[in-house]
Amino acid sequence: MMRFSRSVLRIRSTCLPTPPQLNLLPLPQGSKRLDLPPVLGELVGGVVVGVSALHLLMFPENGALATDSVIMTILQAIGNLSPEAVTSIFQSQSEVISVLAELGVIILLFEIGLESDLRELGKVGYQATIVACVGVAVPFGAGTAGLMWLFDVPVIPAIFAGAALTATSIGITSKVLSELGCLKSREGQIIVGAAVIDDVLGIIILAVVASLAKTGEVDVLNVIYLIISASVFLIGSILLGKFFNKTFIAIADKLQTRGKLVIPAITFAFFMAFLANAIHLEAILGAFAAGLVLDETDKRKELDQQVIPIADILVPIFFVTVGAKADLSVLNPAIPSNREGLIIATFLIVVAIFGKVVTGWSIFGKTPINRLAIGVGMIPRGEVGLVFAGIGSASGVLSKPLEAAIIIMVILTTFLAPPFLRFAFKSSVEPAEQADSVG
Amino acid sequence: MMRFSRSVLRIRSTCLPTPPQLNLLPLPQGSKRLDLPPVLGELVGGVVVGVSALHLLMFPENGALATDSVIMTILQAIGNLSPEAVTSIFQSQSEVISVLAELGVIILLFEIGLESDLRELGKVGYQATIVACVGVAVPFGAGTAGLMWLFDVPVIPAIFAGAALTATSIGITSKVLSELGCLKSREGQIIVGAAVIDDVLGIIILAVVASLAKTGEVDVLNVIYLIISASVFLIGSILLGKFFNKTFIAIADKLQTRGKLVIPAITFAFFMAFLANAIHLEAILGAFAAGLVLDETDKRKELDQQVIPIADILVPIFFVTVGAKADLSVLNPAIPSNREGLIIATFLIVVAIFGKVVTGWSIFGKTPINRLAIGVGMIPRGEVGLVFAGIGSASGVLSKPLEAAIIIMVILTTFLAPPFLRFAFKSSVEPAEQADSVG
Repeated sequence: MMRFSRSVLRIRSTCLPTPPQLNLLPLPQGSKRLDLPPVLGELVGGVVVGVSALHLLMFPENGALATDSVIMTILQAIGNLSPEAVTSIFQSQSEVISVLAELGVIILLFEIGLESDLRELGKVGYQATIVACVGVAVPFGAGTAGLMWLFDVPVIPAIFAGAALTATSIGITSKVLSELGCLKSREGQIIVGAAVIDDVLGIIILAVVASLAKTGEVDVLNVIYLIISASVFLIGSILLGKFFNKTFIAIADKLQTRGKLVIPAITFAFFMAFLANAIHLEAILGAFAAGLVLDETDKRKELDQQVIPIADILVPIFFVTVGAKADLSVLNPAIPSNREGLIIATFLIVVAIFGKVVTGWSIFGKTPINRLAIGVGMIPRGEVGLVFAGIGSASGVLSKPLEAAIIIMVILTTFLAPPFLRFAFKSSVEPAEQADSVG
Repeated sequence: MMRFSRSVLRIRSTCLPTPPQLNLLPLPQGSKRLDLPPVLGELVGGVVVGVSALHLLMFPENGALATDSVIMTILQAIGNLSPEAVTSIFQSQSEVISVLAELGVIILLFEIGLESDLRELGKVGYQATIVACVGVAVPFGAGTAGLMWLFDVPVIPAIFAGAALTATSIGITSKVLSELGCLKSREGQIIVGAAVIDDVLGIIILAVVASLAKTGEVDVLNVIYLIISASVFLIGSILLGKFFNKTFIAIADKLQTRGKLVIPAITFAFFMAFLANAIHLEAILGAFAAGLVLDETDKRKELDQQVIPIADILVPIFFVTVGAKADLSVLNPAIPSNREGLIIATFLIVVAIFGKVVTGWSIFGKTPINRLAIGVGMIPRGEVGLVFAGIGSASGVLSKPLEAAIIIMVILTTFLAPPFLRFAFKSSVEPAEQADSVG
């Protein structure tokens, strides 16, 4: 009994809630109370203005015409424009928004790379790697196989949906962990470490899957080539980056103009994105690698601070666009023909949750650990899941119901993770037989 | 003699050079030594990659085809594309770059507004206003009249070119002044104050002139309506802004997401730009007004810091685009038919310099003052002059030689101002008879 309560105390003490004086600031009433992460607001906002509901923001690649867009209709009425002029504005407006969204996702991945501190992995590297690998393999395997065998989805879309299930959003989990005061706990460090490795694995998978989508067939040799080239690209740029770091800082120090840090950094990110694209991988892989490289410099903090406002402006355009392009009406339960799409969505959500929860039980070792908390901490797909959905949608391989199912899966996992995580950290620790061996 | 040297001492002491210990940092070798402002680098870079030289960055509105663009030719060779595909990429690429440049100029004017501190004008407001008004009236009058009477330029392009002559770049002058340690001197404060008022007057003039360009005719009633509406819009938004300030801060404080300051600020800037456009004025007038409004909030510094990286990324796109679109080859002196364009360019440069230098002698009062320094400080057109050139070029009213002449005028005034300013501040003070009345 004594030992059990000691171990309870130990774990509790590593997870003290934030001191009460930090909560003296007036509490916001809305989204914060409900624990809705901002990315969810942007995505749902996109759904509301998009093809699913208000039809304000429409895109011609969905087969929409200028007359389907409410904004274009208003514009036509205000400006007294001819239908041809409106069609041309609609086309170029959509092109511009799509490019801004693409810039947004590149900046997003650059920022994720900048914030992924690979050195921090040292302490929990071993266990985080296992959690990440299980958390990638189980949802990917179960999702892809389930879609192919249970629902007869063709192989490429099934792989894409499976890949979207592998993502873990580090941002949402680490925010909740920090609110609970558990970010520095062992569980917290494993979750964050695993999410970083998960990002790396996920982006390699995405690069491979998106390339498969371009050719339209799964050739084993090609898959091997893509996996090797994506890994070599990422590891190679990290290794080369150790030398390039100093050159970069020297360039930034020599420049005497405004933006002497942020302009070379963004230029480097776009150059790496171009390079990745040139060897038939995804642009975001390059941007992510660029972020990892520049993360190692002394100017990291300063750079981070300057990239944040740029990301704040461009990244929401990407999330809103993903939401606006996804036609969730194909999952409207009132229409009988939507039944299969709804079942697929339910299947994806179940795999998404259980495929990550099991990761907690992949940790071996004698230290008692909150396995449920680790598993639950890996659940939210957040922005990374949306990157998969967005690129899948742009490649045209996803059917409308499958795309909508992925979006619903991202929304639900992101929405449910914060309350689940609070619950998991409040639940009791591991059984007493493990607490016996606390040193 | 005593009095004279006292006054020399007085002026010298307000203009001490920056202490030597600040110069211990390794001196950069290139642009800084040559005093080339960054905007000049971006503009000249644009000229080099644009239609005048390398033909890398071309725009269809100049009548260029996809095959004229070297980048498109390379793209076609790499991607093995059909001519139709390349034409379509060329069109949409140009559209995207133009929109990014437009976003850049809106952010630029928003930032100029944010940095224009109207309260600072108090001390030197009276004299700064006179300097600004003379510095707007003389170049505008002389430029427009000269172009119409001497060179038979039609009235609208002549007014546009005259308007481009009114600009003063606060950034370049204040940077040189601060290097000379003269920013806080009486001359420095008058120059900076006059440049702020000049911005306000210049943007009102631009709004009026650009509206005239749209209708294509100069109707006195319309001009009066435009001047009144532009002034009312600007003054009205500043007055209303005093109340809106608190609402804005309250909104930003309530938001709990990332970018809670910069997203509402940029949204407000774009909304004001839209509003200005809706009442047939220029979008940049609205963005400038938004900057003036938010400049009054407590969050000013924080906001400024976050807008800077966004401006650093977007504004250079505008300057490079202006440079790339301007065909300076129409001023090549080797071709005889270019003679008239060259004479126009020379005329504009002479008016640009003398029209501003005279402003120094518009100051009356008994205090001795370095009149030459004030006049010279108003010379650089910099970014504001380029905004005129860019909008004039987009409106299509400027002939190619006139557009090129304006660009050359901006380049030369911006290039010459820093050395001129150093010389003017080193030159002796006002004659002794004025020094007598120092009290």
